[in-house]
Amino acid sequence: MALEGPVLVVGAGLLGTSIALALRRAGIDVALRDVSEGNLRIAAGLGATNLAAVDVRPQLVVVAVPPDHLAPVIAEALTGTEAVVTDVGSVKGAPLEETRRLVAAEQLARYVGGHPMAGSERSGPYAATEALFDGRPWAVTPHGTAIGHSVEMVTTLARVCGATPVTFTPEEHDAAVARTSHLPHLLAALVAGRLHDAPPAHLALSGQGVRDVTRIAGGDPALWQQIIAANTTALSALLRDVREDVDTLLQALATGDRASIGRVLDRGVQGTIVIPGKHGGPTGQMATVFVAVPDHPGELARLFADVGEIGVNIEDLHIDHDPARAYGLVELSVATASGDQLRGSLEDRGWTTHR
Amino acid sequence: MALEGPVLVVGAGLLGTSIALALRRAGIDVALRDVSEGNLRIAAGLGATNLAAVDVRPQLVVVAVPPDHLAPVIAEALTGTEAVVTDVGSVKGAPLEETRRLVAAEQLARYVGGHPMAGSERSGPYAATEALFDGRPWAVTPHGTAIGHSVEMVTTLARVCGATPVTFTPEEHDAAVARTSHLPHLLAALVAGRLHDAPPAHLALSGQGVRDVTRIAGGDPALWQQIIAANTTALSALLRDVREDVDTLLQALATGDRASIGRVLDRGVQGTIVIPGKHGGPTGQMATVFVAVPDHPGELARLFADVGEIGVNIEDLHIDHDPARAYGLVELSVATASGDQLRGSLEDRGWTTHR
Repeated sequence: MALEGPVLVVGAGLLGTSIALALRRAGIDVALRDVSEGNLRIAAGLGATNLAAVDVRPQLVVVAVPPDHLAPVIAEALTGTEAVVTDVGSVKGAPLEETRRLVAAEQLARYVGGHPMAGSERSGPYAATEALFDGRPWAVTPHGTAIGHSVEMVTTLARVCGATPVTFTPEEHDAAVARTSHLPHLLAALVAGRLHDAPPAHLALSGQGVRDVTRIAGGDPALWQQIIAANTTALSALLRDVREDVDTLLQALATGDRASIGRVLDRGVQGTIVIPGKHGGPTGQMATVFVAVPDHPGELARLFADVGEIGVNIEDLHIDHDPARAYGLVELSVATASGDQLRGSLEDRGWTTHR
Repeated sequence: MALEGPVLVVGAGLLGTSIALALRRAGIDVALRDVSEGNLRIAAGLGATNLAAVDVRPQLVVVAVPPDHLAPVIAEALTGTEAVVTDVGSVKGAPLEETRRLVAAEQLARYVGGHPMAGSERSGPYAATEALFDGRPWAVTPHGTAIGHSVEMVTTLARVCGATPVTFTPEEHDAAVARTSHLPHLLAALVAGRLHDAPPAHLALSGQGVRDVTRIAGGDPALWQQIIAANTTALSALLRDVREDVDTLLQALATGDRASIGRVLDRGVQGTIVIPGKHGGPTGQMATVFVAVPDHPGELARLFADVGEIGVNIEDLHIDHDPARAYGLVELSVATASGDQLRGSLEDRGWTTHR
C-alpha cells in the first residue's frame, strides 16, 4: 500500500510533530492542525509541514491528541474526510468504543488504531524529532470491521516513520501495555510514594535499585492519569492479582511462611528473564563489570575509548553515582563470555574494576 | 579509635572477602573463617588473609554470614573472644534480639551492627574486591547498651574500607531499608511476576521503563527470602500502605475517580524528587539528550570521546537497545543548562540526537 500523501496530522505535540517530521523526511506532503497556535508555529519552524491544513484532501489522517480527546477527533476525521484515519494513543479499546458510538459503521471501517512505543516521558513539539520512532515497535491495532486497505496504510505509516509494526487486536494491545507499561508505572509510583512519606535521613540508604524502580514514576501525572483511566479493564485485573500477592506476602510475613515469600521472589526472577532483550532476542545471562570512574569530563570518554580498543560490545550500562566522593561506578553489562576479558583488559589499562 | 587488628572475618563470601581485602589494603592483619573450604581457598588466593584463624586473638570480629545464621555466629564471637563484634547483615533488629537471648548483657555491649550498602546482587568470594565499599554508605547501628569503644571501632572499620559511615538505631535502619530496598525489591518482583504470566507476544511492547522497574527482581531469591523474612515489622507496615493504595486505585478505576488516581501519581512524582542524587545532593532537574549509536564496538567510545571534548559532564546514562535494528539509543542526562549545548555540539559532530 503506497503512502503517497498528503497526510493530515492533528495535534502538534511530541508524537504528532515527530510523525510529521518523519513523513517529510520521506518526501511526503504534510498538513498540521493543533488548537494551539504556538505549537503549530514551533512545529512549522522545525519543518514539520509544507501544506495549509484548510484545503488539504488527505489520504491519511493521524490523530495525535491527548487520550481524553481521541474519540471526538477521530470521529470528526472519519465524518469530515474520505481518508484512512489512525491515532497514536496509548490505549486502544476505550477510544474505539467511544468512536463507534459517534460514527456510522462504514466510516469506522476506515479507522485503524496505532501506538508507537516511544516518547511518552517527554512532551511538546520542541522535543520532536524525525528519528523518534527509528527501530521502535509500533503497535497496529485493527478492530474486527476495519478494511484491509486501512490496515495496510497504517502499517506503511509505521514503516515510513522508521518503526517496526506489530499487529494486535485493540484488546490484546491494552492487555499487553497494562502489563509492560501501565502496571509498572503504577507500582513505581507506589514505591516512590513511600519515599515521599519517609524521614529524610532514611533516604541516605537509597541505592541504584530504588532509583531504577522509581524512575518512570517521574512521568507527567496529567497524561498518565488519562492513560490509566482509559485502560480500566486490563489494569484492574492485574491490580487484583497484585493485591492478592500483597495479601499473600502480608500473611507470610505474619506467620513466618518462607515458602510463600520464596514463590513470589522466584516468579519475579522468571519474569525478569522473559523480557525480550536486545534486538528482540532473549535477554540471556550477562556478565557485569563495575569500573570506578573519576567524576569529571573526559574520564568516561577515556573509559569507552579503552573499551572500544578492547573490542568488547557493551550490551547495557549504568552510572551509579557515589553519594560521598567525586567519582561514579560505571556498571557495564557484556555477554557472559566477554566479562573476564573485559575486566582483565581494563585492569591492565589501570582501571579499578570489580564484578 | 585505632583499628590495629588483627581482625577475624567470619564468612568468606562477597562481603566478608571484600572487607578482608580492604583491611589488607590498609595493612591490617586479617584471619578468615568459613564453613566452606572452597570459599576459604579462593579468598586466600585473592590475598584476603595473612593469619591462621585458629590462634588469632582478634581486636575485631566481622560476621559476614547469611541472615539466618547471624545471631548464633555473633553470639559465639562474643562469648568466645574479648573482641568488638560487628556484622554486615541487611537487617539489624531481628538478629540483635536473637543475639540478646544468647549472650550476657556485658557481652552484648561489645556488639555493634553494621550494613555496608553494596554488593547484595552478586555473591561468592570470586566477586570480591577491596574497592567494593569505596564511597558507599555503611550503616552503623548501635543498640542502646553498646559501649562507645565498640561504636567507634565499627565506624573506623567502615572508614578503613573506604565507605561513609552513617549512624542509625537498629529500628531506624530496618525502617529505612524496608523503604529504600526491601519494598522496592518486592514490588519489582510483583511487576516481573505479571510478565511471567504474560502471553509471550505481549512482551514485544516492553520498553526501557519495565526493564528498569524489574531489574532488581533478578536478585538471588534464597538470600532475599531471608532478608524479607527478617524485616517483618517495617515491611508489613509498608505493604499495608501499598495494599491501601492498590485498593484506592481499584476503586478509582471502577468509579472513574480521576482525582484519586492523580493523587497516587503526584505522590510518586514527589517521591522521585526526594531520592538523594549524585554526591548526596538533591537530584535536581536534568536535561536528557538521546543519541542514536550504531551497535558495534568502538561507537560508544567515539561518542564519549566527543562528549569529553565538548566538556559536558554526564550525570547519568542508559542504553536503550533497539528491538529490531542494529543500533541503540543512548540517553545522556546532564545539568539542565548544558542540555542544548551538548545536543548542538553532538549534532555538529554528525550524531543523530533528540530530546
